[in-house]
Amino acid sequence: MNFALGIDIGGTKISYALIDNNGFIKNDVQKVSTPKTAREIESMLKNIILKYENQIEFIAIATAGTVNNENDKVIGSTANLPIGYKDIDFLSLSEKKVFVENDANCAAWAEYKIGASINCKNSIMLTLGTGVGGGIIINGKLLKGKSGGAGEMHFLMSRNKSRRCTCGAWDCFEAYASGNGLRQTAVEICKDENITTYDIIERANNGDVDCQKSLEVWQNDIALGILGLANLFDPDCFVLSGSMEKFVDVEKIEKFVNSFVLTSPTKVYHAKAGNYSGMIGAVLLGNELI
Amino acid sequence: MNFALGIDIGGTKISYALIDNNGFIKNDVQKVSTPKTAREIESMLKNIILKYENQIEFIAIATAGTVNNENDKVIGSTANLPIGYKDIDFLSLSEKKVFVENDANCAAWAEYKIGASINCKNSIMLTLGTGVGGGIIINGKLLKGKSGGAGEMHFLMSRNKSRRCTCGAWDCFEAYASGNGLRQTAVEICKDENITTYDIIERANNGDVDCQKSLEVWQNDIALGILGLANLFDPDCFVLSGSMEKFVDVEKIEKFVNSFVLTSPTKVYHAKAGNYSGMIGAVLLGNELI
Repeated sequence: MNFALGIDIGGTKISYALIDNNGFIKNDVQKVSTPKTAREIESMLKNIILKYENQIEFIAIATAGTVNNENDKVIGSTANLPIGYKDIDFLSLSEKKVFVENDANCAAWAEYKIGASINCKNSIMLTLGTGVGGGIIINGKLLKGKSGGAGEMHFLMSRNKSRRCTCGAWDCFEAYASGNGLRQTAVEICKDENITTYDIIERANNGDVDCQKSLEVWQNDIALGILGLANLFDPDCFVLSGSMEKFVDVEKIEKFVNSFVLTSPTKVYHAKAGNYSGMIGAVLLGNELI
Repeated sequence: MNFALGIDIGGTKISYALIDNNGFIKNDVQKVSTPKTAREIESMLKNIILKYENQIEFIAIATAGTVNNENDKVIGSTANLPIGYKDIDFLSLSEKKVFVENDANCAAWAEYKIGASINCKNSIMLTLGTGVGGGIIINGKLLKGKSGGAGEMHFLMSRNKSRRCTCGAWDCFEAYASGNGLRQTAVEICKDENITTYDIIERANNGDVDCQKSLEVWQNDIALGILGLANLFDPDCFVLSGSMEKFVDVEKIEKFVNSFVLTSPTKVYHAKAGNYSGMIGAVLLGNELI
């Protein structure tokens, strides 16, 4: 059996494991805190790789941020990683081949190969967390666009300039469909500036009508965004992942979308590839592309 | 020189011409009124084909409506063509090969091969007419999706349920960016239920502030939609075509989009492939796919 070293670089921690070419993790996943400077991240990566280098075929890295079309460099949008991170020369970390891809793209690939969207050549994964990430697969290939950064879920939900988005524009899908979006919706409905997503879920479960309404509006906003994507891409399915997806009724969303879709009916699934879908997807994708 | 017979089937007329494999039209384009029944359309197509059959390699048809991934059948959304149109068996029209594709997709392909987006492997064409059509090219291939109907420009512009869209949903891009969308915007701003797009343009040119404002809001809505598409697809460029595109300031839109885009800067162009880009694109695409 051949192994690759899968590494997932996030804003708070770096996880890694040996992964075989079917996406199975050998032994346990190791975790360390993400260092505060790019130089420290680089030397930590070197040390991790050094430990495994003679057991592996290649290194596959899932990372926050946009990765170029050559899969060797981070080119932007790394708000939660230190300045200088973009300048890391990933290829120089090892004599073995190093493959790099955006973490949401990797997770989408894992779902396509071993998860919820298995065998769906056209699928869209939405990661509903603090923000919203996305990975789009068209005809069995990752949509990267001209520079590598395609799949940003920043399209309009309102012309009212109601919510400034993290991207600088107004009223993007992310500003409504994310955990922060749910919170903002609840602030408006519950008239409580300090409400947290945790409060919303707990109070809704205890029968609070405003919190239930907030979740309903949030879910409807997710459905409206998915409807637009279904009309644009005509995908076999959507996969929802991330910390917030467990609060979503995928059947209800699917029903709403299919009652309006112009292309053809689609499916909406919960993600299945697990917490390590990023590093697993990186290995599975690297397997095909390098 | 080898020729194909290019045919464009629209709601009001059918146009056709001999077209070479560089996209040049031999002689003149012929035009006839679109008959009122599917059976009459079918027999008219047979007659047209019969006239040219011994001079051509294949027949390439650009048609209103959604075309399947096998490029031989219309599968839906043909509001302006008669009932039964979907059942036409295009392959049976001739002993030569028959290639069929949606007209907006064909026009996008013509722009990519000989028009404004030449050499742009990732591009999006928006046809701004009574409605909004679209054709999306990714990595030098037409985006068709699982059933063939991808590229429908029906994504949300507002959560207010302000405008019912022709598709049955509310507040789609088409309901704002189309000629009808401009009219609706002017109805709201000018408080004149009977205003026409013609009136808006004429009055704006004569200094009417409300009509100028309506055009500005309309153009801004187009820019907002393009920004979302740029974040999703990261294309090299956008091409605007259709009867309304001449009223759009592409440089202004490009500047707006690039001031917010998360992926990478894009371009916005006026279409260049001309009035017959549908049938020309059908021939150029058929050339590659059959």
